[in-house]
Amino acid sequence: MFPTLYLPPSLGSVFLAPLTPLLASVGGGEGELYAKALALALALAAISTFIFAQIFGELAVRIGLPAVLGELIAGFVLGVSGLHILVLGESGQVADWAVALIQWLSGSDTATIQEIFAEPVKILINDYASAGVAVLLFKIGLEADLKELLRVGPQAATVAIAGVVLPFAAGFFGLSAVFNLDTISALFASAALTATSIGITSRIMQELGVLNTKEGQIILGAAVLDDILGIAILAVAIGIAQNGTIQFSSVLGTIVSATIFVMAAIALNKTFGPRYINFLDRLKNPYSVLIGSIVFLYVMAVIARLIGLEEILGCFAAGIVLGNTKATKTLEKACDPLVALFATIFFVSIGAKTDLTVLNLANPESRTGLIIAAFLTVIAIFGKLAAGYFVFTKEKLNRLAIGTGMVPRGEVGLVFAGLGAATGAVSGSINVAIVLMVIVTTFVAPLMLRKVFARKTRQVKMGAIQPEGD
Amino acid sequence: MFPTLYLPPSLGSVFLAPLTPLLASVGGGEGELYAKALALALALAAISTFIFAQIFGELAVRIGLPAVLGELIAGFVLGVSGLHILVLGESGQVADWAVALIQWLSGSDTATIQEIFAEPVKILINDYASAGVAVLLFKIGLEADLKELLRVGPQAATVAIAGVVLPFAAGFFGLSAVFNLDTISALFASAALTATSIGITSRIMQELGVLNTKEGQIILGAAVLDDILGIAILAVAIGIAQNGTIQFSSVLGTIVSATIFVMAAIALNKTFGPRYINFLDRLKNPYSVLIGSIVFLYVMAVIARLIGLEEILGCFAAGIVLGNTKATKTLEKACDPLVALFATIFFVSIGAKTDLTVLNLANPESRTGLIIAAFLTVIAIFGKLAAGYFVFTKEKLNRLAIGTGMVPRGEVGLVFAGLGAATGAVSGSINVAIVLMVIVTTFVAPLMLRKVFARKTRQVKMGAIQPEGD
Repeated sequence: MFPTLYLPPSLGSVFLAPLTPLLASVGGGEGELYAKALALALALAAISTFIFAQIFGELAVRIGLPAVLGELIAGFVLGVSGLHILVLGESGQVADWAVALIQWLSGSDTATIQEIFAEPVKILINDYASAGVAVLLFKIGLEADLKELLRVGPQAATVAIAGVVLPFAAGFFGLSAVFNLDTISALFASAALTATSIGITSRIMQELGVLNTKEGQIILGAAVLDDILGIAILAVAIGIAQNGTIQFSSVLGTIVSATIFVMAAIALNKTFGPRYINFLDRLKNPYSVLIGSIVFLYVMAVIARLIGLEEILGCFAAGIVLGNTKATKTLEKACDPLVALFATIFFVSIGAKTDLTVLNLANPESRTGLIIAAFLTVIAIFGKLAAGYFVFTKEKLNRLAIGTGMVPRGEVGLVFAGLGAATGAVSGSINVAIVLMVIVTTFVAPLMLRKVFARKTRQVKMGAIQPEGD
Repeated sequence: MFPTLYLPPSLGSVFLAPLTPLLASVGGGEGELYAKALALALALAAISTFIFAQIFGELAVRIGLPAVLGELIAGFVLGVSGLHILVLGESGQVADWAVALIQWLSGSDTATIQEIFAEPVKILINDYASAGVAVLLFKIGLEADLKELLRVGPQAATVAIAGVVLPFAAGFFGLSAVFNLDTISALFASAALTATSIGITSRIMQELGVLNTKEGQIILGAAVLDDILGIAILAVAIGIAQNGTIQFSSVLGTIVSATIFVMAAIALNKTFGPRYINFLDRLKNPYSVLIGSIVFLYVMAVIARLIGLEEILGCFAAGIVLGNTKATKTLEKACDPLVALFATIFFVSIGAKTDLTVLNLANPESRTGLIIAAFLTVIAIFGKLAAGYFVFTKEKLNRLAIGTGMVPRGEVGLVFAGLGAATGAVSGSINVAIVLMVIVTTFVAPLMLRKVFARKTRQVKMGAIQPEGD
């Protein structure tokens, strides 16, 4: 894969840039050409991501839609459904003209450039995306009103449970009884209906400026719990697909460790959080607070991963722990540029990975898929909307808004689709249906959220870094 | 290299984290184990980098040294000379205990984990380092007082030229006449004497709060010019090593294009810069100014690379273009957290790549190397110090400080050493000598700079992001 003379890429390229015309003749020739092609390929991917995100984000905002929708569309345009510049999934090749451009500029050969796009560029862009959603969730954890979140905890729990049970039951019944699907396929498709994309939901609410409303905190809490329930559901589905039984021990283990993790984070907010920040603040390095917090973020992400949770839940928990300390405002500000750059890459990359060619009506599998997709989408939307009404309180709450906030399936739904396909038990058309359901819910959610929050919504500029914002 | 089932790593790992205990039995098993091991290995590298940088940076500041020295030492401790956790060069393996730790936590096998450290982790850490020095130089460009820089231009030019000619001539004469070295070896070793590390010099001056003094601007200007001259010198050295002739066309071409590039950046500051910022500022996305500036940074870095300059010179030029606009302060602030995280990785990685085992006195090559190293170091220091006195002005200037600012060779010097070795013409002991000279000059420069700037120095917290700094 990598040529033997391969040099550490970017830093190597910084070191060796002066020697471009010379090195080719020396001995590190292949390595230098490689480093140059890598730098150019990465620049192409990053520049096109940023420019398209800006253009479509701007258009979205100008016609009154959330910017994140524009970023998803930018991903469609750049990714496997469009220009093939941003090819981030397991298959697919970068457009010939992009390869030719890099070849022309770097002098490297086609095969090497394709390898570069297929490996280091993919690794780097995916890592940036990952860092983006990590810092976004960290910031949302920091900003979360922990008291409010705890107070709405029981309500969030009922919403989360209803939001899992309703779509799952309706989906499973409909797919088995009406569409005559086999049990395994019905199981996976209904499992995908239970997901909630915490990243997309929280970003939209942030954009709308409603994250810290009571409804926003219920949605956030329910989305976190949904993530834990989703793991359990998936464990059940895979267990049945594998050997027809439910792995209760594994399911229970995950739920218990996840619960302990979340409760520990809440407890640490009063004890460890302020002490850690005080300790960092006493250090001489002016950046100690930021760097120390990022270290803590890594640690929490690793713990989350080790106990089988999503890493971003660990990042959210890290934010919870360090919230309400004297450094919280500083940390939030420090996160802004990181979120601006890297979370943009995350949302574009979701779009870039979504294969819209499943919409091709000439393909019979797509046509069957479309019908099932329509059914799944209806269940997906109404199931979550109904869940919003499972808030047991006498308070006057915008229950429709709460349900709406749970609608986007985003990347979590795609994981279910991918896993169904991996078991070999789910057919192509069902897979198409799941993907379409994910696309539609992810797309309509911002539009719906905007509408239902309209009463109290004022389009705020999120964490503005423009001069007028300071 | 990568297993076939390899999934897009970090984002893939975010997606698939919930499935840790399940996926192993499905089909993506190998991919999931891989993703988990990758996430853990990257976390280990990043966490240890940040923690050790904090510890040694803190110790350095407490005993009155610049933090960057502590970061270099943290690199020694973590890198190929120490614990082997951060192995970023072309050879060397990560410590067994680190591999065993990741194996224990992830369940992946030893060979895969070693591959992970050798490729994706190396790619990512090197890229972070690269991004760090890029943003650092961008910020320094933004902060540079362009009028002052132009006014001191002629003085910076004489310092740069003297700082190249004096050490080169003295080094070449001494090595040929006293140490009886062959011409090629003497040529490479003396070429390495001409370098100046713009990254290290500017970081130290920033830490000391003297970057915007007249002396600081002369050093900055001279370091930029030195970079251009260094490329020319290297072209000459390689040309002679290759075929005994000087490639005048290539040398001239580089100097001409570099000069045009720098002049164009200066011209664009008055014309393109403010207009571009105004355009970005009119966009609805609150992050447009930052994202648009980063796009411009990428473009300038690519242009620099295409005309054979260091990428970081392109980043500096991008900063120059966007400096003195209404967004400059905002951009500087937005760069702070990026610099804090990524430039730390850069300075630690320089230390991590430096092989201190060349100091082993049991090795006869090292002993010969030590004697030559002592000679080279003396020339390296006094050559640049003398150059500081080549400022032709009647003003009262701290000429000693100017010369001192040019002393650190840093990563640029290491490139020369590496290339000498690549031609096969430079022996092991000479290579050792060059590396030692680079280490010593990089290390003593901060100590010396602190002393000579002492009169006007007030230890300022650079771009403080602590609450008290806001």
